[in-house]
Amino acid sequence: MRYRESGVDIDKANEATKAIARLVGKTWSKSVLSQIGHFGGLFEIPAGYKSPVLVSSMDGVGTKLLVARAARRYDTVGQDLVNHCVNDILVQGARPLFFLDYVAAGAIDPAMIASVVSGLATACQENGCALIGGETAEMPGLYQEGDFDLAGTIVGVVERDRIIDGSRIAPGDVVFALPSNGLHTNGYSLARRVIFDVMKLGIDARVESLRATVADELLRVHRSYLGAVTSLQEKVEIRGLAHITGGGILENLPRILPAGCAARIEKGAWPVPAIFDLIAREGDVVEGEMYRVFNMGAGMLIVVPAADAARMPSRAEGLDVYRAGSIMKGSGDVTLV
Amino acid sequence: MRYRESGVDIDKANEATKAIARLVGKTWSKSVLSQIGHFGGLFEIPAGYKSPVLVSSMDGVGTKLLVARAARRYDTVGQDLVNHCVNDILVQGARPLFFLDYVAAGAIDPAMIASVVSGLATACQENGCALIGGETAEMPGLYQEGDFDLAGTIVGVVERDRIIDGSRIAPGDVVFALPSNGLHTNGYSLARRVIFDVMKLGIDARVESLRATVADELLRVHRSYLGAVTSLQEKVEIRGLAHITGGGILENLPRILPAGCAARIEKGAWPVPAIFDLIAREGDVVEGEMYRVFNMGAGMLIVVPAADAARMPSRAEGLDVYRAGSIMKGSGDVTLV
Repeated sequence: MRYRESGVDIDKANEATKAIARLVGKTWSKSVLSQIGHFGGLFEIPAGYKSPVLVSSMDGVGTKLLVARAARRYDTVGQDLVNHCVNDILVQGARPLFFLDYVAAGAIDPAMIASVVSGLATACQENGCALIGGETAEMPGLYQEGDFDLAGTIVGVVERDRIIDGSRIAPGDVVFALPSNGLHTNGYSLARRVIFDVMKLGIDARVESLRATVADELLRVHRSYLGAVTSLQEKVEIRGLAHITGGGILENLPRILPAGCAARIEKGAWPVPAIFDLIAREGDVVEGEMYRVFNMGAGMLIVVPAADAARMPSRAEGLDVYRAGSIMKGSGDVTLV
Repeated sequence: MRYRESGVDIDKANEATKAIARLVGKTWSKSVLSQIGHFGGLFEIPAGYKSPVLVSSMDGVGTKLLVARAARRYDTVGQDLVNHCVNDILVQGARPLFFLDYVAAGAIDPAMIASVVSGLATACQENGCALIGGETAEMPGLYQEGDFDLAGTIVGVVERDRIIDGSRIAPGDVVFALPSNGLHTNGYSLARRVIFDVMKLGIDARVESLRATVADELLRVHRSYLGAVTSLQEKVEIRGLAHITGGGILENLPRILPAGCAARIEKGAWPVPAIFDLIAREGDVVEGEMYRVFNMGAGMLIVVPAADAARMPSRAEGLDVYRAGSIMKGSGDVTLV
C-alpha cells in the first residue's frame, strides 16, 4: 500500500506549495529572514520600538466558506480572513507584522489552494503584512469532497505606551462609525438560511434590491480599516476602537467600555446596507436580533474625546465617517435609540 | 427566526469561553498584558534580547483527530498540537513565547472544547508558553455532527546570532537521533487505513505486540524536545535540528542540509517502536514508503560537529540519545543504510 492510496497525495501538496511560494514572496519585506520550506517563519522585529508589545489574533471566516465553495470563488475568503485579523489587532493600536494561514481540505486541489493563497497574499500586501508561513493539511475522512476550512493568525506590534484599550474612555466621549460594505464575515449561518432555505435563491440569482447577485453580495470582501484609522489617528485622540464582528454592536462595544461607562448609539446615524433589510424582512428576524448578529453597516466604532469630536474628519481613506452616538455614565450597557 | 435556530448558539459558545478562561490563565506569565475577551492577545517581548527574531509556525494535528473522536478523548490532541509546534520552532533555535488555537466544529460541545483546551494548556505550561488567544468557531453545514478541526500557531523568539539554520553543517558532522514514542502526529491516514480498514480493529481493541489498546497507541502524545535539546545545547554545538514529521527522515533532513552536503543514516541505530512494524506488515507497506511517511522512531535529528560528538551525552531529560549517522559530501540526498 502506498500513502497515496490512503487518500493523501504528497506530490500534489508539493505542487501547491510551489504555486504558493511565488504569491507569498511578494508580501515579504526585509524583516523576513526565512525561506519557504523552513520549519518556522523568521521575522525580525523592526527597529525603533522602545518597548514593543506583540498583539496577535487567530480567526477563521466561518460559514462564509460555504458560500465561496458554492460560488467556486476562493480568493475573496483569503482577503476576508486577513482584513478581519488586521482589524482585530488594529483595535488595540497595533500595526500588522506577519500572518500565517491554515488550509485544511479533504483533498488538495492545487488550483483552489493557490486561489485562496492569492487572496491572502493580496490582502497581506495591501496591509503591509508578510505572509510568513502556513500549513496545507489534507484530511480525507474529516472533510467532505470539496469542503475546506481556512484559519489564520496575525501578529502585529504596538509601542507599549500607545496601546489602545478603552481605559481612557469617559462619559461625554463621542462614538463614530466607519461603514461596512455588507455582512463582512459574520452571521453567515443565519444569512444563508434566509437566502438559500427561506427565499430559495440560487448562488447566481440576481436580487434587484441588492443590485447584485447573491454570490457578489455575500462574498463582498471584509473591509480593512487600517488605512482609515491610521489617518484619523493623526488628527484626533482615539480612546477606543471596536471591531464589529459576531455579536454585533451590542456585544462588541461593551468589550472596550471601562467601569462606569455605557454607550448610546443612534441607529439611523449611518446607512444600513440593503442586505440587512432583506434578511430581516424575508427571515422575519426582529431588529434586536439583527443587531446582535450582524454589523448592520457599522464595521468599526471609534471613541473620541468630546473636545476632538469637532475636528473629526468626515472622510478617511475613501470611507465616510459617521457620528454614531456617545458615552454616558452607566454599567457597560449599549442602548440603541 | 433567531440565530440559534440557524444552528449557532452564542450562549453555549460563551459558556465554553468561561471554562477555557480558567485553564488558560494558568499558562500566563507577566509578559501577557491582555485579558480574555480582548480582541487580540498582548505579549511583551521579554527584556534582554539584543536583536530578537520571532519564529512562528502554524499547524494542525491531521487525521489524528479522527482517532481522538472515535476514542472520545480530546485532551491529548491539544498536547500534540502544542508539542508539534514547539518542536517546529525549536529546530531554528527558538524558545516558545505564546500560542493561539483555532477549534472549529459543527456544534459547540462545551465539555469537548474544554477538554481540547485543557490539553493545550497543559502542554503550554510544560513548555513555558502562554496560551494567549484562540477562536472557537461553530460552523453547522461545514462540519458533520461530532467532527471538529484544531489548528494552532506558536510564536517564539531567538537571538539573531543564535538562529540554527543548518548553514554550518559540514561533511564529517555527526547525526544524532532523539526517540519518538510512536506515530506522533504524522501518517495517520495510512495508519488508520491499515488498523481500522485492513485489520478491522476497534478503537478499544488490545494489540499484544503493542502491549496497548489501539486508542492508547494511536493517541500517544507527540513528544516535545524542548527540554532535551536545551540541555544538549549546553554541552555541544548544535549545527542543525530536523523535526521528523510528514515526509519522514527522507524529506525533513534535507531541509536543513546546505549545498554540498548529504547524509547517511543507519536504520538500526535507534529502536523502532512496534507500531511501525505492525503497519508495515499488516498493510504490506514497503520500507522505503514507511520511511517517507513516518518518523520510524526518530522524532528529532541533531547535527553536531565531529569534534563534539564524543562529548554528546547518552541521555538528555529522560530520553536516550542515539548516534544515527553522518554528514558526507553530496547534493542533499539522505541515504538509509
